[in-house]
Amino acid sequence: MSKQQFGVVGMAVMGKNLALNIESCGYSVALYNRTGSKTEAIVAEHPERNLKATFSIEEFVQAIETPRRIMLMVQAGPATDATIQSLLPHLDKGDVLIDGGNTFFKDTIRRNEQLANSGINFIGTGVSGGEKGALEGPSMMPGGQKEAYDLVAPIFEQIAAKAEDGEPCVTYIGANGAGHYVKMVHNGIEYGDMQLIAESYDLMHRLLGLSVDEMAEVFAEWNKGELDSYLIEITADILTRKDDEGTDHAIVDVIKDAAGNKGTGKWTSQSALDLGVPLPLITESVFARFISAYKEERVAASKVLTGPAPYKYDGDKKELIEKIREALYFSKIMSYAQGFSELRAASKEFGWSLPFGEIAKIWRAGCIIRAGFLQKITDAYEKDPDLANLMLDSYFQEVTAKYQQAVREVVAIAVQAGVPVPTFSSAITYYDSYRAERLPANLIQAQRDYFGAHTYERTDKEGTYHYSWYDEE
Amino acid sequence: MSKQQFGVVGMAVMGKNLALNIESCGYSVALYNRTGSKTEAIVAEHPERNLKATFSIEEFVQAIETPRRIMLMVQAGPATDATIQSLLPHLDKGDVLIDGGNTFFKDTIRRNEQLANSGINFIGTGVSGGEKGALEGPSMMPGGQKEAYDLVAPIFEQIAAKAEDGEPCVTYIGANGAGHYVKMVHNGIEYGDMQLIAESYDLMHRLLGLSVDEMAEVFAEWNKGELDSYLIEITADILTRKDDEGTDHAIVDVIKDAAGNKGTGKWTSQSALDLGVPLPLITESVFARFISAYKEERVAASKVLTGPAPYKYDGDKKELIEKIREALYFSKIMSYAQGFSELRAASKEFGWSLPFGEIAKIWRAGCIIRAGFLQKITDAYEKDPDLANLMLDSYFQEVTAKYQQAVREVVAIAVQAGVPVPTFSSAITYYDSYRAERLPANLIQAQRDYFGAHTYERTDKEGTYHYSWYDEE
Repeated sequence: MSKQQFGVVGMAVMGKNLALNIESCGYSVALYNRTGSKTEAIVAEHPERNLKATFSIEEFVQAIETPRRIMLMVQAGPATDATIQSLLPHLDKGDVLIDGGNTFFKDTIRRNEQLANSGINFIGTGVSGGEKGALEGPSMMPGGQKEAYDLVAPIFEQIAAKAEDGEPCVTYIGANGAGHYVKMVHNGIEYGDMQLIAESYDLMHRLLGLSVDEMAEVFAEWNKGELDSYLIEITADILTRKDDEGTDHAIVDVIKDAAGNKGTGKWTSQSALDLGVPLPLITESVFARFISAYKEERVAASKVLTGPAPYKYDGDKKELIEKIREALYFSKIMSYAQGFSELRAASKEFGWSLPFGEIAKIWRAGCIIRAGFLQKITDAYEKDPDLANLMLDSYFQEVTAKYQQAVREVVAIAVQAGVPVPTFSSAITYYDSYRAERLPANLIQAQRDYFGAHTYERTDKEGTYHYSWYDEE
Repeated sequence: MSKQQFGVVGMAVMGKNLALNIESCGYSVALYNRTGSKTEAIVAEHPERNLKATFSIEEFVQAIETPRRIMLMVQAGPATDATIQSLLPHLDKGDVLIDGGNTFFKDTIRRNEQLANSGINFIGTGVSGGEKGALEGPSMMPGGQKEAYDLVAPIFEQIAAKAEDGEPCVTYIGANGAGHYVKMVHNGIEYGDMQLIAESYDLMHRLLGLSVDEMAEVFAEWNKGELDSYLIEITADILTRKDDEGTDHAIVDVIKDAAGNKGTGKWTSQSALDLGVPLPLITESVFARFISAYKEERVAASKVLTGPAPYKYDGDKKELIEKIREALYFSKIMSYAQGFSELRAASKEFGWSLPFGEIAKIWRAGCIIRAGFLQKITDAYEKDPDLANLMLDSYFQEVTAKYQQAVREVVAIAVQAGVPVPTFSSAITYYDSYRAERLPANLIQAQRDYFGAHTYERTDKEGTYHYSWYDEE
């Protein structure tokens, strides 16, 4: 009996869809799931497909041709370790394990190291695009041994989403945890994009009194221009949808305003804090989700905490909508500038030589943050792979120069009207901090030297100084 | 020969000063330092003091009466573990080790557990107040076995700073890592306070053109009112100081605007992210330090990134200064509200039953964030130990109602003038988010359900829902 060309462990929806995607590219695939009935059902559902159900780890491993290519689509964390341990005794040197879960990058670094000792290659790959992406073509961010990736590259390039120019949305990211790191930052950026859209929606609703239908049109219109992206597109679509539970409301109007999260946004902020990289926008978007989840406290507080004097915007509606659009695009640039700064610092810290331009390129299709805008980032890094900050690229310089006034106005109005815009205000603050020749951190250094003798540098000469603040010194 | 009543390991400045402080309260103290010459020099410097130099760990331990009370004042991290390991073979059951370093609370939890297995008690205590505080009276935040703390409490109460009402600035915080956790949040709050002062200074300088001397007067004036605090006091003092290297400048004007950090601020943010607590203000202050450290990039960016149209504030100077003061006090309340929310979540998560009111009380003197204001927090928790958020206390409600307009105006002006105010804008955003009955997170939930089938709740009935966004569903 001939062996299968690929194996997938874990038949939840992501694993199932990836397996179907791989099979539809012409590969025979062995399937395994802890609960065998699920595997059986999938094969029964697709009798014409080249899928082989297996019912023990040993049977699964033996069904695959060597060097084996096995993808793990199980829950990130202990379940991944347990699956690896159960596979290990049956594997041969040179086999390639691929973890396609939302794994914390430090776990991937650890597993890659541990497995390398047994001669097993380990790829940790980000897979973005949700269930639909897994089936129809995700964006993929693989990291691990380069020679191991070469063994799976032909398959990954076939199953990945294709950008408009036909290029597959997958590229080798770097050693060990690089792929999962980049996926983590992708998710952090996704948090930022979503919060920016939510603030725009809130402003149009609360300041301008736009109806859900009117906002659907605004977002649809925005999707035709610079903001063209999957998240803007689905926002426009969402706003057209009616309640499916029988009320007359738009569905957004009956959805509870308490956002959940799966932790990858938080990791992105925590890693930035470890690396010393300012990542305020994404972090504000994570905190905005947290505060939204305090729903009951907020309802109680709304009754006792005083707001500003009633604010009535009396300018031109269309003008303010355009300013919100400009503020959104400006802020999006700040968010990506911060995300890529983090990638740059991580690349240095972990020795990854991350291909920044390629990373933007493989996000052009398949993933949640896909957008026309990403081509501009690719272009920027092609012009200057060593770009210190995205804002300094000529295209982004030009846009930010043009739109910075709009974001200032929008933030000033929102703050005075009492509408919270954590990411919009964080965006302009980041811009003004980054372009500040002088910040007031000199005073902070003086304070630190005063109470803790932490010393400081001077502006006029090299060296480390301490001031005799106390008489006795 | 009679034994010593207390032992201190580590004779760097903090250890030395604490030992002198303890001795001056009437206790005999054994000293040990890896480099013996340092111990010798300290004892020689203070021949009249009841200090005993020891030159091996064994000699040190043998010199102390049982149950031994030994304080470790060594570098946080591996040095602390190494010191504990070297002490262990010589200790007896019931001895108390006290770690007074700036230790990460999870390390303290781990050490407390490990040592408990050997019958050794382990206290992790925050010590705030810098070198001067260690010598003259710090604020102390001890956590660990309650019965072990009772053995050191008489000493700690004597050496600690005394508040105006004479109460010592030390109290039992809770089990295992509780003390170090509270010290970590203290430091995060310190970051926030310092950044708020720095932004106030920057606004007076850049918007109003105040001289350093004029600002010294403003801060001295502020220190007489609601803002009365150590950090405002030293800021006023710092601004009066001239360069000690021979130029005519004020010392702040020659100090480089690149702030350092020792990591405890970052931990505070990372823990908030783990706990799901919004902590934007402190986090923005950490990021503000990071961005200040990008000095060269900023200087380069300042030449190419466009600012707003030149902004001239043409209102009354005194009025704006007063608004900045109000904005500072308002924002400080937001920062402490966030810090205490984090303590509340940590208390629940780690089972500590933290005494919030007592914590504010022991910060009234000795530590870096000492301020009259802390009494208000103590009062609030005495009225309601279960207060969901500090803002909801009647005093804080009243102040925020009164000052919210000022912070809105200050932020609006700053944003339009191009002066970055990350913590001021974050403060008003937090306030407006917390008092929002409805936030736009409903749209975020719709998006998450659209691309990831993450489901959502409804506003009108219980349960978890998923919408059929796609035709095929």
